[in-house]
Amino acid sequence: MKISEIASIIGAEFDGEDFEVTGMNTLKEASNTEISFVSNSKYINDIKDTNAGAIIVDKSTKDYVQNGSVALVVEFAYWQMATLSKYFAPSIEDDTLAKAQIGEGTKVSSKAEVANGAKIGKNCMIMAHVYIGAESVIGDNTTIYPNVTVYRDCIVGNECIIHANTTIGSDGFGFATSKLGEHRKIYQNGNVIIEDDVEIGSSTTIDRAVFGSTFIKKGVRIDNLVQIGHNCVLGEYSVIVAQAGIAGSTTFGRNVVMGGQSASAGHLNIAPFTTFAARSGITKSIKQSGLTFAGFPLMEHRTWLRLQAKIARLLK
Amino acid sequence: MKISEIASIIGAEFDGEDFEVTGMNTLKEASNTEISFVSNSKYINDIKDTNAGAIIVDKSTKDYVQNGSVALVVEFAYWQMATLSKYFAPSIEDDTLAKAQIGEGTKVSSKAEVANGAKIGKNCMIMAHVYIGAESVIGDNTTIYPNVTVYRDCIVGNECIIHANTTIGSDGFGFATSKLGEHRKIYQNGNVIIEDDVEIGSSTTIDRAVFGSTFIKKGVRIDNLVQIGHNCVLGEYSVIVAQAGIAGSTTFGRNVVMGGQSASAGHLNIAPFTTFAARSGITKSIKQSGLTFAGFPLMEHRTWLRLQAKIARLLK
Amino acid sequence: MKISEIASIIGAEFDGEDFEVTGMNTLKEASNTEISFVSNSKYINDIKDTNAGAIIVDKSTKDYVQNGSVALVVEFAYWQMATLSKYFAPSIEDDTLAKAQIGEGTKVSSKAEVANGAKIGKNCMIMAHVYIGAESVIGDNTTIYPNVTVYRDCIVGNECIIHANTTIGSDGFGFATSKLGEHRKIYQNGNVIIEDDVEIGSSTTIDRAVFGSTFIKKGVRIDNLVQIGHNCVLGEYSVIVAQAGIAGSTTFGRNVVMGGQSASAGHLNIAPFTTFAARSGITKSIKQSGLTFAGFPLMEHRTWLRLQAKIARLLK
Repeated sequence: MKISEIASIIGAEFDGEDFEVTGMNTLKEASNTEISFVSNSKYINDIKDTNAGAIIVDKSTKDYVQNGSVALVVEFAYWQMATLSKYFAPSIEDDTLAKAQIGEGTKVSSKAEVANGAKIGKNCMIMAHVYIGAESVIGDNTTIYPNVTVYRDCIVGNECIIHANTTIGSDGFGFATSKLGEHRKIYQNGNVIIEDDVEIGSSTTIDRAVFGSTFIKKGVRIDNLVQIGHNCVLGEYSVIVAQAGIAGSTTFGRNVVMGGQSASAGHLNIAPFTTFAARSGITKSIKQSGLTFAGFPLMEHRTWLRLQAKIARLLK
Repeated sequence: MKISEIASIIGAEFDGEDFEVTGMNTLKEASNTEISFVSNSKYINDIKDTNAGAIIVDKSTKDYVQNGSVALVVEFAYWQMATLSKYFAPSIEDDTLAKAQIGEGTKVSSKAEVANGAKIGKNCMIMAHVYIGAESVIGDNTTIYPNVTVYRDCIVGNECIIHANTTIGSDGFGFATSKLGEHRKIYQNGNVIIEDDVEIGSSTTIDRAVFGSTFIKKGVRIDNLVQIGHNCVLGEYSVIVAQAGIAGSTTFGRNVVMGGQSASAGHLNIAPFTTFAARSGITKSIKQSGLTFAGFPLMEHRTWLRLQAKIARLLK
Repeated sequence: MKISEIASIIGAEFDGEDFEVTGMNTLKEASNTEISFVSNSKYINDIKDTNAGAIIVDKSTKDYVQNGSVALVVEFAYWQMATLSKYFAPSIEDDTLAKAQIGEGTKVSSKAEVANGAKIGKNCMIMAHVYIGAESVIGDNTTIYPNVTVYRDCIVGNECIIHANTTIGSDGFGFATSKLGEHRKIYQNGNVIIEDDVEIGSSTTIDRAVFGSTFIKKGVRIDNLVQIGHNCVLGEYSVIVAQAGIAGSTTFGRNVVMGGQSASAGHLNIAPFTTFAARSGITKSIKQSGLTFAGFPLMEHRTWLRLQAKIARLLK
């Protein structure tokens, strides 16, 4: 899409030299043919380092735009980013793509659906009522149990097991909200990448990234009914017990353990080999490796034990 | 079904003039051809205003029945209501209904199942392994991702998006329990109504009403793995974050926000523009708009922050 | 598989008389043609009563092996048990089994899949996109709603109702972890047995046992989005409200009630007629029947109410 068309869609003025915009991205990741946005003053500092070809900004932010990025000035940048995201969303399915490629020794149930453009490796088992979306890629020796849905563009590695009724790559929970309280969807145009030797339980949901990828690294174990938000990164061999949930953009180092029904806020960084007890509410980043936490708000597990002792005394 | 037959099914005496009973309903909603029940002394006051043609009552309640309603006196009214509910349950599918109507421009996967009697609007996308039940109605421009189940009689509006593996209209959790601890199912003969511009995440469950409807109003956003109980009403533009749950018959005003893993008790009323932090446990109705709450039991968010400060001090 | 082959697979020495090993099992349940293991010093006392034909042990444990059981000595018994579990896993589907048997009056959707070797009773309704695995058995008059997955070898009783998108018999969350933090799957070669008159909500997950069975006894009611871990036993008429979770090997007596979003640790025993309030975190076994609990850590409900009063006072 031309930058001039984009300006027209979002109601911004534009009278520079026209060029083709190839996608939307964050300030950090955008190339000079991509468009980005600033919706929060906390990201103003990222403007000076961006390569973005154009940036959607509010009036108050436009003077920070530099380095030859085009500023598209609108009244409510986040809302217009949402508006524009729809135009960059690929069609959910695409009949013009080539028929799915199925590797040798792979068994695809006649009651599964593998969309055009998908590729499945060797010796996989794709069971009844599975859906594999357009341009998704499944590695070798992977088993996908019945009623699993893999949305388009996602990648699943070798030697993985995905249990029944799980969803890989559904849209992250993203929308802009107007002053009147109305919402506009931010299309989630990223994907999910699951590396090798990952096992995922049943009725778990892993959201696709808004831009870029949600990553589940090698050897991760995820139990049933777990929620992984968009743009999360689960480090190698991490273990997520049933009914835990992780909000968007949180990154775990390797071998992080989350107990059952625990939860993490978004945008956190968790050091490798951290353990969170069942029901933990992770409210802050963890820098030191190897510790064990509990409680909500989060505290070291031994502190939590002391707190419970104090509370028991309170009752006497 | 004749009132005389009903009396015989539930073991009540009846010697008045026979009439056709068209359905079961609450005291408040029942018409004079419907049958209702009183199972809890707190509803005795509703008897004097009811139009119900007949009421199932315990001995201790029968003298409150008036206005020409027929009293069907049994030993355990709630149990007999459960008994009777089965007789008013429509068949799950019905081959005698007309073939489903599919609007222009709508794409229904050959691997989806649309039951007889259903109607789907224009320009929808009904993907593989979706099930749309008998006499359900889907609006225009709605996308239903793979493995979604919509039970019979439910309504989904225009411009909606329902993500994979979600269930709309499964039975609410209703049963009577005898003194010996045995359960009898209360058939859930209501439905779910989802208005326009609603987006629902993956593996979310929205239960059908026991009588009447569970309502999801215009513009609501529901994340993954959320539970909405029977007869809830979610107000316009409300936002329900992942793994939250709402027990039956709770009503939200517009723009209520529930954080992740929060929960609400049943039978509450929540004022518009109320925000509940993650993990809140909503234990009471909220009358004043615009406040933010946290904790379990529920308190204002600023009180919760004070409480955490006190607890931190306790540990020193 | 011969014991000599097993020794070779797990890297143990063996020079006794060879014999055919028919399966893996716990020390308590193993027969003299089965192989067991000791991975935890707490189970050393079980060795003297076992009938196991062979036991995988660490060096430190080997001298406890007696009664003619063969000791297979390895460096890390739990890891080698995991290694071996794969060899005893049946194939997920088996085309050599007889075609499924379908009872009189049962309606199986043409879009359901019933694997070879399965048996379905009379007057059932097996709806679209259901999967019934190999050698599973479904009783009479049972309704299975769309998109339900029943894994192989599971048993569902008469008069049951299973709602949409629920999973019966997916693998329990079992794996061994090496000193380097890598995981190896423990194949879950047990099953799930659901007795008569059980109703299970939508998007609920019930894991198959690692050995033996996960049991859901007669008359149990399970709501939506509930997690039941491997080898749990739910007593007759127990009631599990939405989003509750039970870790592995916990046993409930009859008529236990778990409120919404409550959770139980594993390996506990809960007395009949115990009630847990919403959000309870069950951290210990309960011996006395008929009590009500709340909180996390768990306390009697009346104590929890006193605690909340104390906390309210703290805030004044």
